[in-house]
Amino acid sequence: MSILETISGPRDLRSLDEAQLETLASEIRDLLVRSTSKVGGHLGPNLGVVELTMAIHRVFESPRDRIVLDTGHQGYVHKMLTGRAGDFDTLRQEGGLSGYPSQAESEHDIVENSHASTALSYADGLAKAYAIRGEDRHVVAVIGDGALTGGMAWEALNNIAVAQSSRLVIVVNDNGRSYTPTVGGLATALTSLRTDPRYETVLDMVKRRLNAVPGVGSAAYDALHAMKKGLKDALAPQGLFEDLGLKYVGPVDGHDRAAMETALTQAKKYGAPVIVHALTRKGFGYDAAERHEADQFHSPQPFDIESGEEKARGRIWTDHFADDMVEIGHRRKDVVAITAAMMHPVGLDKFQAHFPDRTFDVGIAEQHAATSAAGLAMGGLHPVVAVYATFLNRAFDQVLMDVALHRCGVTFVLDRSGVTGDDGASHNGMWDMSVLQVVPRLRLAAPRDATRLRELLDEAVAVDDAPTVVRFPKGPPPADIEAVDRAGGCDVLVRSGARDVLVVAVGSMATTAVEVADRLVAQGIGVTVVDPRWVKPVDPALIELARDHELVVSIEDNGVQGGCGASLLQALNAAGVTTPVRLHGVPQEFLDHAKRAVILERIGLSPQSLARGIVEAMSAGSPLEHEQPVERPR
Amino acid sequence: MSILETISGPRDLRSLDEAQLETLASEIRDLLVRSTSKVGGHLGPNLGVVELTMAIHRVFESPRDRIVLDTGHQGYVHKMLTGRAGDFDTLRQEGGLSGYPSQAESEHDIVENSHASTALSYADGLAKAYAIRGEDRHVVAVIGDGALTGGMAWEALNNIAVAQSSRLVIVVNDNGRSYTPTVGGLATALTSLRTDPRYETVLDMVKRRLNAVPGVGSAAYDALHAMKKGLKDALAPQGLFEDLGLKYVGPVDGHDRAAMETALTQAKKYGAPVIVHALTRKGFGYDAAERHEADQFHSPQPFDIESGEEKARGRIWTDHFADDMVEIGHRRKDVVAITAAMMHPVGLDKFQAHFPDRTFDVGIAEQHAATSAAGLAMGGLHPVVAVYATFLNRAFDQVLMDVALHRCGVTFVLDRSGVTGDDGASHNGMWDMSVLQVVPRLRLAAPRDATRLRELLDEAVAVDDAPTVVRFPKGPPPADIEAVDRAGGCDVLVRSGARDVLVVAVGSMATTAVEVADRLVAQGIGVTVVDPRWVKPVDPALIELARDHELVVSIEDNGVQGGCGASLLQALNAAGVTTPVRLHGVPQEFLDHAKRAVILERIGLSPQSLARGIVEAMSAGSPLEHEQPVERPR
Repeated sequence: MSILETISGPRDLRSLDEAQLETLASEIRDLLVRSTSKVGGHLGPNLGVVELTMAIHRVFESPRDRIVLDTGHQGYVHKMLTGRAGDFDTLRQEGGLSGYPSQAESEHDIVENSHASTALSYADGLAKAYAIRGEDRHVVAVIGDGALTGGMAWEALNNIAVAQSSRLVIVVNDNGRSYTPTVGGLATALTSLRTDPRYETVLDMVKRRLNAVPGVGSAAYDALHAMKKGLKDALAPQGLFEDLGLKYVGPVDGHDRAAMETALTQAKKYGAPVIVHALTRKGFGYDAAERHEADQFHSPQPFDIESGEEKARGRIWTDHFADDMVEIGHRRKDVVAITAAMMHPVGLDKFQAHFPDRTFDVGIAEQHAATSAAGLAMGGLHPVVAVYATFLNRAFDQVLMDVALHRCGVTFVLDRSGVTGDDGASHNGMWDMSVLQVVPRLRLAAPRDATRLRELLDEAVAVDDAPTVVRFPKGPPPADIEAVDRAGGCDVLVRSGARDVLVVAVGSMATTAVEVADRLVAQGIGVTVVDPRWVKPVDPALIELARDHELVVSIEDNGVQGGCGASLLQALNAAGVTTPVRLHGVPQEFLDHAKRAVILERIGLSPQSLARGIVEAMSAGSPLEHEQPVERPR
Repeated sequence: MSILETISGPRDLRSLDEAQLETLASEIRDLLVRSTSKVGGHLGPNLGVVELTMAIHRVFESPRDRIVLDTGHQGYVHKMLTGRAGDFDTLRQEGGLSGYPSQAESEHDIVENSHASTALSYADGLAKAYAIRGEDRHVVAVIGDGALTGGMAWEALNNIAVAQSSRLVIVVNDNGRSYTPTVGGLATALTSLRTDPRYETVLDMVKRRLNAVPGVGSAAYDALHAMKKGLKDALAPQGLFEDLGLKYVGPVDGHDRAAMETALTQAKKYGAPVIVHALTRKGFGYDAAERHEADQFHSPQPFDIESGEEKARGRIWTDHFADDMVEIGHRRKDVVAITAAMMHPVGLDKFQAHFPDRTFDVGIAEQHAATSAAGLAMGGLHPVVAVYATFLNRAFDQVLMDVALHRCGVTFVLDRSGVTGDDGASHNGMWDMSVLQVVPRLRLAAPRDATRLRELLDEAVAVDDAPTVVRFPKGPPPADIEAVDRAGGCDVLVRSGARDVLVVAVGSMATTAVEVADRLVAQGIGVTVVDPRWVKPVDPALIELARDHELVVSIEDNGVQGGCGASLLQALNAAGVTTPVRLHGVPQEFLDHAKRAVILERIGLSPQSLARGIVEAMSAGSPLEHEQPVERPR
């Protein structure tokens, strides 16, 4: 029986001796590598926090003390130490272990979402609540140096610095990276803390020089020594954190578990907020990860343990976007690219290789990405901001106020839009086409295939007085679907039989829509399938098409509430078109993790269930009555 | 002729002598006081930047050099110096001078919106664009110390610190306040910069002590002196900014125009990003403002110049909320309150006076406000976060992911919702009821009067597993309107005659709806007016009511695109209810500043125009055909 198998909770950690703890660390790393080699997952970050997490769980008493993990990318070790090591063969599978902390899984889990830089804010609130309620509980927040580049972390630090009654320990897990090396002035500041020799050096210098002055000797040195306290205040690392008034402990070697425990114990005793600065290495202890240049196996595909070779994956949407950007970059010298700490994941690394001076990694800082893009546009350039769809929500106000109000030509490219599946609720990009509907002047395109991506991206970067958005899903694009006709700005994909049903297919749902059409046609129902290409604003041609059909069906991989279908319904209503409309999209709920196809089936977005519903409705003569819960009861 | 009258642009400033410049400063202050005494406006901030703005316009050459003002609260002096002094009698009037910078007004204006902490991001983008394009232009960003508490400013600083080719000067206008004193660790850091005596003191101490050692004298001092450079690096203010690697100049007395010019000239020559730290006093030079305790006349109502007495204003929504919170605070020990640097404007000062330990001012940090509230809720408390409606957009992702996903009972109170008028596009709170529609579990209430505010706030703070939102407009609430009946959770306000028209009146539009009903009834049309109270989720009773009428009309003081009416339309469609629906709300455009009533009339939300449209539609038998541009052509 391995030691890991004996760990049913953090308490079990505390009775282990040094040798057992070392063995445990190595067992944890084995399990990390084994599990992620099969299903992929956040390997690199977890390899980096094995000792750190063990130390935290030995010094603090979860769940009485609360451990808040920023982004949850580093949550696997925590899961193993809180009784879930045995479940790792179900990792990221439907009904199995979530890839992120999950309140439903364990009382030791708190924050479930993967949006970075939030942990300090949660922790500040928790610690203040315990102080107010007089509960003697500590809150430990673990945040990466990359996440500290996000504005929220700054807002939180600013508040925590003056929260003297909070029993709050902030562990900065400093591996110098988010996906890629951490950028900006913060990295400079952390490096200076990591290596600050000022205190010793200056004292040494003074001593050396004084000794060189005849007749001075030790007396003067003693005089100086008496000033030590004063000098220490002036000369000890007056880093960023202490400037804010925060107590700082470190730097500590995050892979030296005993040293970490000492630092954490010291911090725990302090009784007010403390920063513990831990230096770690992403991928630590697994060669293939440490050697992996792009991101130390931040989140690999399934891979071969021996060689570290990832299973080949096909060409995904991101790859097409990456190539399109390089092509545009050659043609349009005014186009610049911005990523929020995700150069590789969003495919801008290729653009960067060709145009390093026109590529900006702003850190985990979507707000700054949007507004600095507005500034770049005002300065005569055309920025393309590439982010995961779910993260654009963090810059909604900036898109609205800083870009749209100021008529700036900025293109936002949303990767991983729609139902992404495996990574759980917070990674689904199912909100963008709803919230962006309200932004005046904004134009939003959803390409159905790689060819349309190229076309629409071209059209988007040609708009110089308004925000444009191009969104596409995770994974490989479908085979190209050529239009059989054009209506206004829309592509007609199918025109078969009578004008019974108009299917409005948004972006990646075009393939589904064509399958639905096949099924309907087989039942003798006439179908037109149209891809609007630009889904905002509503194309007047769509309204005319709708007027000519018996039923309108919209299909989108986005929240049905206020989405593209709802927007079309509203436009039809305003135009006095009374054709019945069936809206299909993601119901208003947070989706548990599962494969995309499984989720689409479950929420009624598979071709079968869509076609079945339409046929039943048409034959019953009541095309509107259908199961479509916009919002589940609370 | 005054000197101010001779200033047609910044160039004219450069030929003035010292005496003339002093006279000019005093003329500017006179005009500031005179103009705002008549119509209200941002007096305090502008009094504090008279010399600072003059210095900037003398050292830099706008519009070639770009001057970016954060929030624009301090833009009046800039307007006066760029040829608009003569227009100040039209300040904040329809068609007159905007209270914020405005590109339409002047080529010297860049950023129009009033959402804080954005200037550094714009400036970073602009300066990078000029560097890429090889244009020799400087960018000057003026940002208050309060705005530095916002996360975006941190994100920008982190990037600017490594943008060595940017010709960017950041003027920190440090008056120690936003509305109220700046909070948090940042304030500590700025204070330490303001007063840092370390460099001089330590050198002096060393010198004194060495002199006291027999036989040392000047030789040792010289040795130390030779180390000056090394010591200076270690001992000069290693403030926040220099920790990040940013060049820092200051602190400078912001009311000493000549000193400011020297510092700015030095910064201009540096050729890379520089912080110039200016110390100013809000309200400087006008006694009544300097003496004004709450906020140095940040943005007073019209006032008497002699006495500084503001014109009395009636009891506004905020006052009712303030009293309700105190009452709830006594009854519910678990209720805590959070403001983002706007304790007085949102009326939480009363709660703070009663419950100082349960009140948090988090700085201009809406994101942290939302997520720390989630933490407080997880810790067993019920936070009420009070912000202006337009600012909640900045925390949309936090409401969705950090509060709703985690089932936290947090109540958001949105003041200044709907069309606010005078303060222009970015102050209108016309987006909240649209974007919040997509948040699962969230419940949104719009009280129609002060009594309903009390009731709905009570109901909101009773929800402990989901976000709740209560929104109300600027100004005084209308007289209470009592319900004649109840339908589900909705109040029926009017039930008159046949079931012809169902008017769904959202929040403050209830008064308008009742007036509309009067007009319709006078024309022989039967009307039911219903106030849903909770507008999200859609009350099933509304759907039944809609089924029973000939026409449904929704009226809301929020964007018509995706708003409450649209959500009702979608719910009716899903339920197969085919009653025609007319949606009335704010069209999708940014609204120029004007009085609220004028804007409502212009966008068709006055009782007259609403009634006229309904009557015409009903008599024409085609209730759906109406002028309702959702989105204006680009």
